[in-house]
Amino acid sequence: VTFEITILGSSSALPTSLRHTTAHLFNMNERFFLIDCGEGAQIRMRQYHLSPAKINHIFITHLHGDHVFGLFGLISSLGLMGRKVPLNLYGPSQLQDVVESHLKFYGPLKFELNFHIADHGKTVYSDGKLEVRSLRLKHRSDTFGYIFKERPPLPNIRKEVIARYRLGVEDIKNIKEGKDFITREGQCIPNSELTLPPIKPRSYAFISDTAYLPGLVNDLKDVDLLYHEATFLDKDAALAEETMHSTARQAAVIAKDAGVGKLVIGHFSTRYKKTVLFEQEAAAVFPNVSVAKDGDKFDLPIRRQS
Amino acid sequence: VTFEITILGSSSALPTSLRHTTAHLFNMNERFFLIDCGEGAQIRMRQYHLSPAKINHIFITHLHGDHVFGLFGLISSLGLMGRKVPLNLYGPSQLQDVVESHLKFYGPLKFELNFHIADHGKTVYSDGKLEVRSLRLKHRSDTFGYIFKERPPLPNIRKEVIARYRLGVEDIKNIKEGKDFITREGQCIPNSELTLPPIKPRSYAFISDTAYLPGLVNDLKDVDLLYHEATFLDKDAALAEETMHSTARQAAVIAKDAGVGKLVIGHFSTRYKKTVLFEQEAAAVFPNVSVAKDGDKFDLPIRRQS
Repeated sequence: VTFEITILGSSSALPTSLRHTTAHLFNMNERFFLIDCGEGAQIRMRQYHLSPAKINHIFITHLHGDHVFGLFGLISSLGLMGRKVPLNLYGPSQLQDVVESHLKFYGPLKFELNFHIADHGKTVYSDGKLEVRSLRLKHRSDTFGYIFKERPPLPNIRKEVIARYRLGVEDIKNIKEGKDFITREGQCIPNSELTLPPIKPRSYAFISDTAYLPGLVNDLKDVDLLYHEATFLDKDAALAEETMHSTARQAAVIAKDAGVGKLVIGHFSTRYKKTVLFEQEAAAVFPNVSVAKDGDKFDLPIRRQS
Repeated sequence: VTFEITILGSSSALPTSLRHTTAHLFNMNERFFLIDCGEGAQIRMRQYHLSPAKINHIFITHLHGDHVFGLFGLISSLGLMGRKVPLNLYGPSQLQDVVESHLKFYGPLKFELNFHIADHGKTVYSDGKLEVRSLRLKHRSDTFGYIFKERPPLPNIRKEVIARYRLGVEDIKNIKEGKDFITREGQCIPNSELTLPPIKPRSYAFISDTAYLPGLVNDLKDVDLLYHEATFLDKDAALAEETMHSTARQAAVIAKDAGVGKLVIGHFSTRYKKTVLFEQEAAAVFPNVSVAKDGDKFDLPIRRQS
């Protein structure tokens, strides 16, 4: 079961020759979720051989242009590609106004747009395999981060026990639900001997844009993959505070305090020429850090609890 | 004096991994004019080392998304880069509505936007060196092409005659304006002996999107560089007519009938895998043709009339 993030844009407000503005594509078991949609997100998808047509859910953190100006072209392209199925958009309440005001000129569409309003701690999406919660961030406009958490799958039954105990369909269902098994001879086989150790649900959090916000730590506890914005270096912490952004060090402190598995930073201000400085600054606090660049992929393998 | 076009986007409605949607940048003597602004035009400028800050005039042919969705990001970036000077926008009357409706959410700007409405045969821009006329095209929405024509510069005086006849500032002014020169001895030196042959004004026409429109030929007479859309191959001429686009052959017929210097075609439908087919089809009618790709530059050297 794939659990993979592709970076479609890693710059902050201004794009550069190598970095588009913010967008991530999250692939969970070949279901695709877009998080933010800076200008050119659909172009990056083409370049990385990812089809925009597969996206059914788009999560927007806030309405600043560098997180949303790719939405108009993407929606238009989906229409041209013959889309019929609804597209779900998640974000601040004003998202619907922005999109519908645009569609006064560029609509009507031949597919539905369903808008879902984010709120702090709200589960904005859930299906059998995934749950997405929105978290309020601290920025100059109404801004939300998102946590994508795999829902614990039912445990797998060890192959060899099916033949050994001649398990039927009903037996398998009961064992998957956690019950022990009683053989015809009346012997009780404990559930743990019949099943593989449960899979540890994987999680990915997208935190951008925000001022340093230690209150996030509880919500991010034990997240496997944390993307956190790092617009500035810590020598410009005053500027970060003023513009309500974070520094690389602050992103790393959040990662460390939350005990996440891996930290990815992005949204670098174009004032800095070398992103290695971001990496060094963050790694001093939290070593397992990567500096995002467009086209990077980060995936999490399936792990069983030991 | 530079007269150079850079292709920023050469695809039609859908971008591809290699082609952005329509945009050209025209450099006339280090003054920069943008024609159309598909998504990612500002990103292409970064990639081709062209500064968006230098643009003061943007000509929009029509309001379909693939010609205009890069405008929002570009305008936003110009603001972030500290722009103070006005930006001039030329296009169909509805352009102002589209941009101002967008700016209800993303304004106010710290620089002025001046809107200029295109009309058939109207001179929408002129300065001492350049004149731009708009031409009505035949498409599914209000659409205009633009002809950029160098204004004939004053003739250059031959260097050697300045010393020979001890010409003063007033003499030089008179000669540049076409007068003959009378020496102190009363001898009349004809103007043609004092000046270099006049420079032939260069011209560039941008024709997209349009159905085959033979009525354009008169307006395009002797244009040096003609960009003409070629969305389809001629085997799909019926589809071209239905969607009000041109085929490669039709673009070449216009070029041939107008006697232009060079033809560049673009706006290729993504249904075709090989653009060489467009080139072959057009070249059979008009040999001096190039198939545009993003990053291509076409320049016209100064030529003197013989």
